[in-house]
Amino acid sequence: MFDIDALLEGVRAGSISVAEAGAKLKAAPFLDLGYAKLDLHRSVRSGMSEVVFCQGKDDKFLTEIFARLLEANGEVLGTRCSAQQAQLLQGRFTDLCYDEISDIIRSPLKETLCGLIAVVTAGTADIRVAEEAAQTCEFFGGKVLRLYDAGVSGLHRLLSRAEDLQRANVVIAAAGMEGALPSVIGGLVGNPVIAVPTSVGYGANFGGLSALLTMINTCANGVCTVNIDNGFGAAFLATQINRLAVKGGQR
Amino acid sequence: MFDIDALLEGVRAGSISVAEAGAKLKAAPFLDLGYAKLDLHRSVRSGMSEVVFCQGKDDKFLTEIFARLLEANGEVLGTRCSAQQAQLLQGRFTDLCYDEISDIIRSPLKETLCGLIAVVTAGTADIRVAEEAAQTCEFFGGKVLRLYDAGVSGLHRLLSRAEDLQRANVVIAAAGMEGALPSVIGGLVGNPVIAVPTSVGYGANFGGLSALLTMINTCANGVCTVNIDNGFGAAFLATQINRLAVKGGQR
Amino acid sequence: MFDIDALLEGVRAGSISVAEAGAKLKAAPFLDLGYAKLDLHRSVRSGMSEVVFCQGKDDKFLTEIFARLLEANGEVLGTRCSAQQAQLLQGRFTDLCYDEISDIIRSPLKETLCGLIAVVTAGTADIRVAEEAAQTCEFFGGKVLRLYDAGVSGLHRLLSRAEDLQRANVVIAAAGMEGALPSVIGGLVGNPVIAVPTSVGYGANFGGLSALLTMINTCANGVCTVNIDNGFGAAFLATQINRLAVKGGQR
Amino acid sequence: MFDIDALLEGVRAGSISVAEAGAKLKAAPFLDLGYAKLDLHRSVRSGMSEVVFCQGKDDKFLTEIFARLLEANGEVLGTRCSAQQAQLLQGRFTDLCYDEISDIIRSPLKETLCGLIAVVTAGTADIRVAEEAAQTCEFFGGKVLRLYDAGVSGLHRLLSRAEDLQRANVVIAAAGMEGALPSVIGGLVGNPVIAVPTSVGYGANFGGLSALLTMINTCANGVCTVNIDNGFGAAFLATQINRLAVKGGQR
Amino acid sequence: MFDIDALLEGVRAGSISVAEAGAKLKAAPFLDLGYAKLDLHRSVRSGMSEVVFCQGKDDKFLTEIFARLLEANGEVLGTRCSAQQAQLLQGRFTDLCYDEISDIIRSPLKETLCGLIAVVTAGTADIRVAEEAAQTCEFFGGKVLRLYDAGVSGLHRLLSRAEDLQRANVVIAAAGMEGALPSVIGGLVGNPVIAVPTSVGYGANFGGLSALLTMINTCANGVCTVNIDNGFGAAFLATQINRLAVKGGQR
Amino acid sequence: MFDIDALLEGVRAGSISVAEAGAKLKAAPFLDLGYAKLDLHRSVRSGMSEVVFCQGKDDKFLTEIFARLLEANGEVLGTRCSAQQAQLLQGRFTDLCYDEISDIIRSPLKETLCGLIAVVTAGTADIRVAEEAAQTCEFFGGKVLRLYDAGVSGLHRLLSRAEDLQRANVVIAAAGMEGALPSVIGGLVGNPVIAVPTSVGYGANFGGLSALLTMINTCANGVCTVNIDNGFGAAFLATQINRLAVKGGQR
Amino acid sequence: MFDIDALLEGVRAGSISVAEAGAKLKAAPFLDLGYAKLDLHRSVRSGMSEVVFCQGKDDKFLTEIFARLLEANGEVLGTRCSAQQAQLLQGRFTDLCYDEISDIIRSPLKETLCGLIAVVTAGTADIRVAEEAAQTCEFFGGKVLRLYDAGVSGLHRLLSRAEDLQRANVVIAAAGMEGALPSVIGGLVGNPVIAVPTSVGYGANFGGLSALLTMINTCANGVCTVNIDNGFGAAFLATQINRLAVKGGQR
Amino acid sequence: MFDIDALLEGVRAGSISVAEAGAKLKAAPFLDLGYAKLDLHRSVRSGMSEVVFCQGKDDKFLTEIFARLLEANGEVLGTRCSAQQAQLLQGRFTDLCYDEISDIIRSPLKETLCGLIAVVTAGTADIRVAEEAAQTCEFFGGKVLRLYDAGVSGLHRLLSRAEDLQRANVVIAAAGMEGALPSVIGGLVGNPVIAVPTSVGYGANFGGLSALLTMINTCANGVCTVNIDNGFGAAFLATQINRLAVKGGQR
Repeated sequence: MFDIDALLEGVRAGSISVAEAGAKLKAAPFLDLGYAKLDLHRSVRSGMSEVVFCQGKDDKFLTEIFARLLEANGEVLGTRCSAQQAQLLQGRFTDLCYDEISDIIRSPLKETLCGLIAVVTAGTADIRVAEEAAQTCEFFGGKVLRLYDAGVSGLHRLLSRAEDLQRANVVIAAAGMEGALPSVIGGLVGNPVIAVPTSVGYGANFGGLSALLTMINTCANGVCTVNIDNGFGAAFLATQINRLAVKGGQR
Repeated sequence: MFDIDALLEGVRAGSISVAEAGAKLKAAPFLDLGYAKLDLHRSVRSGMSEVVFCQGKDDKFLTEIFARLLEANGEVLGTRCSAQQAQLLQGRFTDLCYDEISDIIRSPLKETLCGLIAVVTAGTADIRVAEEAAQTCEFFGGKVLRLYDAGVSGLHRLLSRAEDLQRANVVIAAAGMEGALPSVIGGLVGNPVIAVPTSVGYGANFGGLSALLTMINTCANGVCTVNIDNGFGAAFLATQINRLAVKGGQR
Repeated sequence: MFDIDALLEGVRAGSISVAEAGAKLKAAPFLDLGYAKLDLHRSVRSGMSEVVFCQGKDDKFLTEIFARLLEANGEVLGTRCSAQQAQLLQGRFTDLCYDEISDIIRSPLKETLCGLIAVVTAGTADIRVAEEAAQTCEFFGGKVLRLYDAGVSGLHRLLSRAEDLQRANVVIAAAGMEGALPSVIGGLVGNPVIAVPTSVGYGANFGGLSALLTMINTCANGVCTVNIDNGFGAAFLATQINRLAVKGGQR
Repeated sequence: MFDIDALLEGVRAGSISVAEAGAKLKAAPFLDLGYAKLDLHRSVRSGMSEVVFCQGKDDKFLTEIFARLLEANGEVLGTRCSAQQAQLLQGRFTDLCYDEISDIIRSPLKETLCGLIAVVTAGTADIRVAEEAAQTCEFFGGKVLRLYDAGVSGLHRLLSRAEDLQRANVVIAAAGMEGALPSVIGGLVGNPVIAVPTSVGYGANFGGLSALLTMINTCANGVCTVNIDNGFGAAFLATQINRLAVKGGQR
Repeated sequence: MFDIDALLEGVRAGSISVAEAGAKLKAAPFLDLGYAKLDLHRSVRSGMSEVVFCQGKDDKFLTEIFARLLEANGEVLGTRCSAQQAQLLQGRFTDLCYDEISDIIRSPLKETLCGLIAVVTAGTADIRVAEEAAQTCEFFGGKVLRLYDAGVSGLHRLLSRAEDLQRANVVIAAAGMEGALPSVIGGLVGNPVIAVPTSVGYGANFGGLSALLTMINTCANGVCTVNIDNGFGAAFLATQINRLAVKGGQR
Repeated sequence: MFDIDALLEGVRAGSISVAEAGAKLKAAPFLDLGYAKLDLHRSVRSGMSEVVFCQGKDDKFLTEIFARLLEANGEVLGTRCSAQQAQLLQGRFTDLCYDEISDIIRSPLKETLCGLIAVVTAGTADIRVAEEAAQTCEFFGGKVLRLYDAGVSGLHRLLSRAEDLQRANVVIAAAGMEGALPSVIGGLVGNPVIAVPTSVGYGANFGGLSALLTMINTCANGVCTVNIDNGFGAAFLATQINRLAVKGGQR
Repeated sequence: MFDIDALLEGVRAGSISVAEAGAKLKAAPFLDLGYAKLDLHRSVRSGMSEVVFCQGKDDKFLTEIFARLLEANGEVLGTRCSAQQAQLLQGRFTDLCYDEISDIIRSPLKETLCGLIAVVTAGTADIRVAEEAAQTCEFFGGKVLRLYDAGVSGLHRLLSRAEDLQRANVVIAAAGMEGALPSVIGGLVGNPVIAVPTSVGYGANFGGLSALLTMINTCANGVCTVNIDNGFGAAFLATQINRLAVKGGQR
Repeated sequence: MFDIDALLEGVRAGSISVAEAGAKLKAAPFLDLGYAKLDLHRSVRSGMSEVVFCQGKDDKFLTEIFARLLEANGEVLGTRCSAQQAQLLQGRFTDLCYDEISDIIRSPLKETLCGLIAVVTAGTADIRVAEEAAQTCEFFGGKVLRLYDAGVSGLHRLLSRAEDLQRANVVIAAAGMEGALPSVIGGLVGNPVIAVPTSVGYGANFGGLSALLTMINTCANGVCTVNIDNGFGAAFLATQINRLAVKGGQR
């Protein structure tokens, strides 16, 4: 994060005063709005800029955060954005795109898409979560292969695309009800599978708990799980993996 | 059960006394041993004789029940029978067979096996439960096709036998951990699938709860569920279905 | 499913090109609408056509699916259909019947009803689920015997119809609250009992969990369980069993 | 409890000093052994003497409590008493009876038994809990009618004794697994039914939770529930009700 | 229930035909309305007439049931009756009283109240449930002592009324949140305590589960539990006990 | 509470009659409004006056309670007060302040604030709960240090204020989702930390259960937990600790 | 923690080299044993030295940790120490005291005990947990008032000691089963109450969950909760509060 | 997997008979041992060979599997291997290494280690799980950085190593109790974090459920979760990610 040695060297050399260095050492690399602390440096650390979870934020607050982030980063991504919030934000900032299925609002894509992330759903009702994932991946520069309504009760729909899935650097698999999809995909591919339980279902699905337990207990290797309906979280992780595959990491 | 009209007719005709008829009407078709009531007539009603759940029964009690049932039905089936109990019973009654994997003890098979019941497991650790099911099916006259260690993380093991499964009148699918197997089989076959969650697994499997929830929430049609590790219960139901397929039912 | 040998023979004989055969081997027997994959071949495999779960589907999507299925199968069954959806569909397609209690919409019955399926409820509040089951059974050609409000706290209501229940090839038993009905029926009849827990109740019923646990833990033989409020699922399974009893299966 | 007015009158009249009265007002009607407080007055208030829960108490402690209670009340009842503890206590105090099934140890019965309490079990494995209940009822002076192994999967066993159950002032019904027995009895009798869930079962019974939920959600009127395996608690309550029926209460 | 012997004697003597007797033996003592089965004989068996759970019943159904029960019993009690339903019923039947706190609608009280039932609540929010209990007790002829807002965090409010509670034949104790009230009352009185967990609370009360578990695990003797918010169920049981105390039972 | 000895002395001396003393001994130190019992003496015992939980109370009741408490204590604090209720109360009583974020309504602060209580939140959505805590602390005379949006996924925001937190007599830490904040703070400070789980989150947070379990299982020392969203409860406890630190206690 | 300004001043003045300062800034104030990191500075920060959780630690590791802590602090406290471990440690280090009830091993008490902490239990089975709390409080210099077996089903045992409890700076209340004790104490005293749920009980206590939920949902003010059976955790917190009361804090 | 086109081309050209090709198409790429199906081709697909879960396997079975895998792959990895099993296997096969902490048995490492995977634990009791992860990573060719006992209640232990963690391609974070560690690490690093809940803890940790819920609900980005105590699963996934970073993937 901080280059402590450089700072200390400056103190020794007298180019930075003790007071100034003390302030810097204690200063948090975030922007304090009073009611919130925007983490502007996170884009440096993770290579991905701060994302706004719009749901439940009031209009004034939401507008200010978007303004600050656009100013700081030149781009912004908002998730769980209602149609009303989208209208407000699009009225205030030009160039924002809004997608009603995923409730994602964002600046136009800048990066050339590269790498390959597959996003698969078990049913059509899981598409809302899957699109939140897919569009987040694209915002962060990943190429996305979509394969929807390919649940395990009709395996041929999945098997007919097995080779495509095997080419992806990482697969995001969203499923509700019994949530068996990631286990099957985990047996088909050699790269990581990120399982997203969804709250789709009824009865004993207990708001997605059944799918969550299924995925956590998977007998397939290379499968991990995020929170129920957390398409964004899956996409963030998938982007990290995709970037490692594209740009390489520690060798 | 009772032919009430015939009984009443007998009363009217004087061939049966009021006292006698009253006694018959109130009499329960079971044998009261004091500490237990053996349901000897159940074999008439369901076509399947009373089965002994051996676990936890003391020696004297167990021996007496076996004696009574052998006397009444000419055959007996015991489940969850420990090696010690098996030794005791085999010493007392000739011709009892004991299987250490399934902990089943039984009289020699009498009926010619007919119909076809498939018993499938996800892993090798589920075989204990599956054999309890398979051998119970055979005791009640069903032919059994075994397919073990064919879980969803390696689909080719299952798909290579799809045609065999499709021929069965009913499939019993036992799986622990995430319990996805019955959903996949439900998508492959046209006849009923009986899902048996097993307690196999660790961590968040919660003694089989995860597999149970998976199976109850299945997105596949034609799948139903019995209790965790209840191989016997699955076999009893499978036998009922198999017999309907072999002998026919109400048209 | 596929006749692999015939296909290969065609390749050998030159009547089918390698490219064509490869395409066929990889082709999935489903109709891809982009947002959904209709499984038109399922009616071949299971003898029952694809059923539409209407709840939550938007109007355009719903209408298109109904159109495709009517075209492919000449009939259609929709479950969990709201009054508004029913009005839309009945305006678009002639001859659809809608039932407000069960929220079922369907083409007129074609097959002669045969076999016998009993549908029993513990209380009047369970009728909604029971009718979803009963009408689905009838759509798939089964004769249905209804016995409603026959819960275990007034046994005479159930016992007075015991002989009728014993004649059925399979019994569907729907109950909420403590869900004890299937256990009692399981002790009365010799054919399979499909238990449907319902979300009827309050307090510690936890949305149907109490009834589900009761049914999974049943001490009666020949009882299996489906998801909470899943009348359709019970009916699908009951139809499979009823058909085996009527048409016979593997001997 | 205390006759405050009499005490105050004594103070006014000078027959009791202020210090003495203050002490009495603050004094607790129990015997403080340091590690435990024996409630010797409870037998006055409830008409039933203090009962010892033996499980886990060390020998020295157990012996002292028995000695104190025998001295104070002339009789004693111990529950969950191991064979080893029984041997110790019988060696130390004459006239104690020990029952290995219920793990109850007690002084000989003194009172003439009166009233009628029925104790019913669903299976043979529930008898351990039922006997704890039955023998406690007898210790407190109730006549007990035992009806064991009369579960709901074989209703004739229960119905054949319906008239006997209807005569009882209160019924204790112990059941594990799905725990449906009390609901059925509640529909048969007009007096209170105390449901005792037992931990008997396996799989999704979760140590008796399934039976507990069943009983709490009962659709039958006049049924209440105590803790899992709590035969003693059921008996205490049944005794209170039985005594009200025999001796009458507030009119 | 039925006098089987008298019936059989009639058959023998020829005063009852076989067909007639058969019909009677099979006839259920209930009134079949098609969608519901009113148990008119229950008032004979339990001494308490059928009660209507109004919630969720449609207007036509509700009106018909009230008409039939008024005709059969000359009185009626309805619980969970909404203001709208009350208006409808009061418009159709004269003399019905409606209470908005408890949502109880009923015929005027006929019996002289006798015996004594105490109804206690922990807080003011529990009064809704308590009044359902209290007014049901009064409908069935019990005298009721109300003690509200007497929770355990201010014990003096409860202790100041201890003697009153000790006089009651039975105490109903309703509490939400931590639900400790019945344990404290169980230590104060010698007669039965019926604990009613309520859904009052927030956070980790899980809709009343916390209070339910507290009550089931009570360390006090003579306490039993009914379902969450089940004021009616507690009152039904309390009435049974109160009547045994007033009228006496089996001796 | 009562000075029993003085009272008894009065009786002995004849200055207080027996009847009068008996009445006093039984009298509860609360004001009985019929539907509620206001505990006016609590302010004496705890040093903190009765607080009104406004949610769900009807207007007439609410107004009367406020009137009584203002009369008795000269001040009042209401929590969970809706905007409508606030308008009503401010119209009726002058000088009441209302805060829309925390839903707190109160008399103007009287005491000089002293001591130091830190209130920290993990995110901005936890502020509602935190403000309920902070403003309650201030009403009871504590000085409050607020530190909001300082969750563990950006530790620098928290660490930059560590010295401030270490100066506080007690820290209130409110967090939803995974609820890790109190564990981290517990490792930073030497005084007590009161953890408040909030219902903020989605998916597997189960209404705050996940945060509650995290806090109960904390590996940090000096951390305790209150109910989900219970900002008031945390503040009451924090005030007790703060007062002990400011005024001293038993030495 | 660190005096950053002094360090920086040293760098500026040249008395500390950049390398040295950098090392210090990064250095963690703990002792790294390879397999564990002893936090020797914690005693500075919290005023309480590191405590050893002995359970499950192997002999070599345990001995080394005791040696290091004794060397660093001159005293040591171990919790959950088995009799075997105690024998080992007492053989190696002189002056260690071991208590078999609480499984606590410790150096002789050094400080004069001051302040007052009350430790109360509901039953005798809770004493094990209570003694862990009481002896930890004493080790850290607090005076302890013990009040055992004073559960809510016999209130007089608790009320007779109310004045003693009110004098304590903080009360630790340990209870299993229904866990109602802290709520009652919270209504009696004006200082903080730390509730410790214990795993004492059976049936639906679910290993202490029932008591935990009771305590979290308490209706009493000034009550907080720690983990099940966590006597040490309660004592640590109580010591912090007691010290604030004795020594004073921020004013 | 299969090269279908090449196969078909062979059929067309006559170089492969129809029968042979049919057999190949249906053949599963696994070795059927009867009781188990070894997936020898998995090493081709995932680049990682089949791993043996030793726990619960009997000696004969275990030995045969090790023999087959050594023969097929030239190396083998076994997890959850008991000391007895290790002795057996080491006696039978030369060159196997066994580690008692992690219960891992394996062939000597062949590959040069490359890339960087950090394995962190919250406490010393989590090391067992962490070593299973670390040694599996090394078996599959990854370099491992171990950082143990660095839990969140003493943050300096973790922060002092932040730069090391940031260099790793992926971090495995194992924690029991409240499981907050991965959230904190997720805020410190820019690459993926794999959270492993452990069953370490007591009381309300419910066998690891508390840590699992914490991790699933994490507020940090880039964190995913595997099953409780599943060190192997975390390592498999980490290896996949590490290899993508080292070798690159789809661009």
